[in-house]
Amino acid sequence: MKKAVILLSGGLDSATILALARQQGFACYALSVDYGQRHHAELAAAQRVARALGVVEQRVISIDLTGFGGSALTDARIAVPERPTQGIPLTYVPARNTIMLSLALAWAEVLQAQDIFIGVNAVDYSGYPDCRPEYIDAFERMANLATRSAVEGKRLVLHAPLLHLSKAEIIKCGAQLGVDYSLTVSCYQADGEGCACGMCDSCRLRHAGFDAAGMADPTRYRGA
Amino acid sequence: MKKAVILLSGGLDSATILALARQQGFACYALSVDYGQRHHAELAAAQRVARALGVVEQRVISIDLTGFGGSALTDARIAVPERPTQGIPLTYVPARNTIMLSLALAWAEVLQAQDIFIGVNAVDYSGYPDCRPEYIDAFERMANLATRSAVEGKRLVLHAPLLHLSKAEIIKCGAQLGVDYSLTVSCYQADGEGCACGMCDSCRLRHAGFDAAGMADPTRYRGA
Repeated sequence: MKKAVILLSGGLDSATILALARQQGFACYALSVDYGQRHHAELAAAQRVARALGVVEQRVISIDLTGFGGSALTDARIAVPERPTQGIPLTYVPARNTIMLSLALAWAEVLQAQDIFIGVNAVDYSGYPDCRPEYIDAFERMANLATRSAVEGKRLVLHAPLLHLSKAEIIKCGAQLGVDYSLTVSCYQADGEGCACGMCDSCRLRHAGFDAAGMADPTRYRGA
Repeated sequence: MKKAVILLSGGLDSATILALARQQGFACYALSVDYGQRHHAELAAAQRVARALGVVEQRVISIDLTGFGGSALTDARIAVPERPTQGIPLTYVPARNTIMLSLALAWAEVLQAQDIFIGVNAVDYSGYPDCRPEYIDAFERMANLATRSAVEGKRLVLHAPLLHLSKAEIIKCGAQLGVDYSLTVSCYQADGEGCACGMCDSCRLRHAGFDAAGMADPTRYRGA
């Protein structure tokens, strides 16, 4: 079985790509990153999802990005917006996907895996620059120059299977593969139990996705 | 003054780029990475160098790469080679420069800096894939698609001023700029006091550099 590293945040999208990678026959190594995120509950969700869907191994690697700050997710003084905003929102974390992908690249090389999965989406998304197709292509190109494996001619493939799907399509796809979305946490300000605020960008996109998919939203909302 | 993030390992090359960035008029923010490296003494050297050359701020960020291993620098069970070897040596750390550059990119974005300096060299070097010009170009290209700054049209420049210099040229350049190389640590297995083994790849390249530059080698060697 070919190995793949799956970036598993514990949200809806990353749970879906883990299910997709398993369906495609990969032996899955899930990498979760504790970067000091406000919604720390997503890490517990990542563990639940990894267990439910079956991975060979899950690693949680710590890198404290609160020292850099610059985002509502890594600086407690910046509030998570609870209404739609224009442009790139305050929840954008500087270089987050680049940092996570570089860690996935390191682990992939040690595992001799040639495949990395990331759950970025450029349709129903928050408008983060590091979720765009051109960014994903550029990272893959760079990765294929960065490593010993690359020099040895082994090509690394960066899979972003959700890139062009709507949230509803992602949910339908995952549901068909048996993903239990009640295990996942998407809310940018989920509480310690993983209960969602229902108002942030991520909650809105998620709820609208279940609606459009014609499915009941299994999210646990605070005070509900 | 324009701000720049300088990747400062504490070795000879990174001390030189810090001096070069200062000479070019940048306000320098030094970023050092504690990744569990065998030669942990280089971090103390980075602090000495930052102090001696003058930086606005130095940050040390921790990311434990020993969990991944795969290198003589991050896995205590793999010995540092003490003779020249063929191909990419065992001291290569999977995706290290990609991880470090991604952290530098994050800090640069928060600082609103458009310039990052890295001391990679592709002449007198260990043959690491992530020290090659084509890798540096690809990282810069990716970085210019990754961030909010990029979307706003601010171009990030990845400076690798040592890329095409010999070790002797690097040393002469730094010496002219007043770099005190006795503060730096290059040895892959430096002891707690920063004393060098004199036998690893990094020691050999460094010593030959001082020889070729016609300068006394200020390195403190173990047992000397």
